[in-house]
Amino acid sequence: MSTQITLSQRALALTSSAIREILKVTERPEVISFAGGLPAASTFPVERMRAATDKVLTEAPQAALQYGPTEGYGPLREWVAQRLAAAGAPVPASRVLIVTGSQQGLDLLGKTLIDEGSKVLVETPSYLGALQSFSLFAPAFAGMPSDEDGIDVDALTPALLDGARFMYCLPNFQNPTGKRLPLARRKALVATALAAGVPVVEDDPYGELSYGGEHLPSLLSLNPEGGIYMGSFSKVLAPGLRLGYVVAPEPLFSKLVQAKQAADLHTPSFSQRIVYETVRDGFLDEHIPTIRDLYARQCQLMLDALERYFPAQAHWTRPQGGMFVWVTLPHGIDTTALLAKAIARNVAFVPGAPFYATDPQINTLRLSFVTVPGEKIEAGMKILGELASEAIAALPAAAAA
Amino acid sequence: MSTQITLSQRALALTSSAIREILKVTERPEVISFAGGLPAASTFPVERMRAATDKVLTEAPQAALQYGPTEGYGPLREWVAQRLAAAGAPVPASRVLIVTGSQQGLDLLGKTLIDEGSKVLVETPSYLGALQSFSLFAPAFAGMPSDEDGIDVDALTPALLDGARFMYCLPNFQNPTGKRLPLARRKALVATALAAGVPVVEDDPYGELSYGGEHLPSLLSLNPEGGIYMGSFSKVLAPGLRLGYVVAPEPLFSKLVQAKQAADLHTPSFSQRIVYETVRDGFLDEHIPTIRDLYARQCQLMLDALERYFPAQAHWTRPQGGMFVWVTLPHGIDTTALLAKAIARNVAFVPGAPFYATDPQINTLRLSFVTVPGEKIEAGMKILGELASEAIAALPAAAAA
Repeated sequence: MSTQITLSQRALALTSSAIREILKVTERPEVISFAGGLPAASTFPVERMRAATDKVLTEAPQAALQYGPTEGYGPLREWVAQRLAAAGAPVPASRVLIVTGSQQGLDLLGKTLIDEGSKVLVETPSYLGALQSFSLFAPAFAGMPSDEDGIDVDALTPALLDGARFMYCLPNFQNPTGKRLPLARRKALVATALAAGVPVVEDDPYGELSYGGEHLPSLLSLNPEGGIYMGSFSKVLAPGLRLGYVVAPEPLFSKLVQAKQAADLHTPSFSQRIVYETVRDGFLDEHIPTIRDLYARQCQLMLDALERYFPAQAHWTRPQGGMFVWVTLPHGIDTTALLAKAIARNVAFVPGAPFYATDPQINTLRLSFVTVPGEKIEAGMKILGELASEAIAALPAAAAA
Repeated sequence: MSTQITLSQRALALTSSAIREILKVTERPEVISFAGGLPAASTFPVERMRAATDKVLTEAPQAALQYGPTEGYGPLREWVAQRLAAAGAPVPASRVLIVTGSQQGLDLLGKTLIDEGSKVLVETPSYLGALQSFSLFAPAFAGMPSDEDGIDVDALTPALLDGARFMYCLPNFQNPTGKRLPLARRKALVATALAAGVPVVEDDPYGELSYGGEHLPSLLSLNPEGGIYMGSFSKVLAPGLRLGYVVAPEPLFSKLVQAKQAADLHTPSFSQRIVYETVRDGFLDEHIPTIRDLYARQCQLMLDALERYFPAQAHWTRPQGGMFVWVTLPHGIDTTALLAKAIARNVAFVPGAPFYATDPQINTLRLSFVTVPGEKIEAGMKILGELASEAIAALPAAAAA
């Protein structure tokens, strides 16, 4: 006799992340992988975190290992509030929820804001993990048109905005495109959303990774009372702690807390205290520039290689921060087919299609440069450039024009 | 202009845990609280965990701080599989999913198994946190009748079982009652569920806390191919790490992994490695008996105090393990009203009603004894006994009979 399990409709609709599946292949050491979304492990401040851990286990071991409040560790919430205020977004610590990685923030926002069929506005393309999280709650996604600068605010028509539960944006060095939304567009976006009564969910894991160090105001800072904001320690400290935060106005904040309580009671007390001890004395202000410098160098190597090896018909973004370059090949090329050929030659990337909630552009791909040594960027991009040229050469004449 | 947020139906139905709200009151140091569900922090193996943390940060710092696989850290999954096998439930590590506290397991099971209106069988009463997690997915709960030994398997009629997506059981020292399901009933329960085609979800955070050290076979061990099992490190090590695991058969297992990926990508790599280093050499076998001994002594103090101070019309469970005693007062007494009086006298407990998915028994209450010093158990129970006696004296004559 075997147990017969009936899965929910939600579970039946679930699919695994294309990136995760590809990453399994790329664990082979001979593969040059531009597919990952991992930060460079060489930047993790191990000794600083060891000292923080020692301090936590010496000064408050029982509290650090005991259950804690769902909202998060008080001093860490205060620290987040102060850092946001210093960046122009004054929000009280009472509206900061510590979450188990900002991915959890997406799950909680999906739970509290999406009914079946609710309209949710997303960028084209957008962060795959957000699309996955939201999809569990069966929204009707609508794509916000974008151009080389990100969301095209003028294209947000009343019909598109009407009835949307929220719009989901990554204004800084977006995953997957690396684009940063210019200041004028930020202002226009927030004004448009406010006028239409559509809440803005701002996901900002990469905002600190501006290569030049200059920051544009967050969408939250343009609407601190009403904005919903997600931040993360994954890209500025280390992702293995799974620590992020969500800022939200009431009554949403209270609902997020209740949903989090049902989801995992609270984010690990131990990690919260370690991170607090690591960052409390201004450490990030000396640490983040070292990450920026590394990523800026790596990005330049990739841009140089694109210039050198990619065919003239290809286009790509030139990020000023973050971890990703987005490449667009001519129409008619399917980058999933290209990936199969690349993997046969031990190079990996992520095809662009899964990043689109609607109308996938199958001729796009995402490249990450942060964890690949310079000589391997060179070697891997040479191969990808050859494959792209071959694919273009194989196109019917009309399509390649 | 203020942002107007439309909450999901799911969010509107959310309520905060009664326990969490009460715990806020009980943070006042003068309150003797039997309301908590916290393990005794004095049992946390701080030095052992410090050594484990040092080892992790010395031997594999970058891996411990980097993103990891959604399924969990391989050696920890292996360890769990071996421990389950040693307890009579042979399951492969490939069916062990590490989760961010077993509370997350409940959320993932709700997501993957419950559609709106799906029948879900729960004990009467059951774990409040599970009811909260499942409720987000709008099931139709049906209560499984129980008596002093736990689930009354004979009362599981075909009509009750028919079409249930799963039954949720805590066979060992149940939260909130402290009851342990006898062996014969375990066998009957698994056979009945299998015959009816109803999957069994077994939640087992307290199984290791048998005061006498003797274990009854898990429901999983009676159906290792088909059982769904949740375990936790919270009660045998420390809850502040938020570490648990779920065992499930395919195809459910793969869906749980996908749902977890959308929920938080993976459980913190750092905590997983720390726990693995802490437990890998058999540490729990020497550590758990010290927890059991403490809890057994504390439980006896509470049982003695109940005997001494509580009126003859009250009944209570006599747990052989775990963290809770369940008290039933005469019909007509509302323990929520009793709580208000108790808090006025600086004593707290949890009223029983929220633990019922259907037909709440408002004359019940849960007492936790594990974190309260002996003299405070004595003092607090004396007050509760007086209040219970007063409440009984105030009942109409017929009700008190």
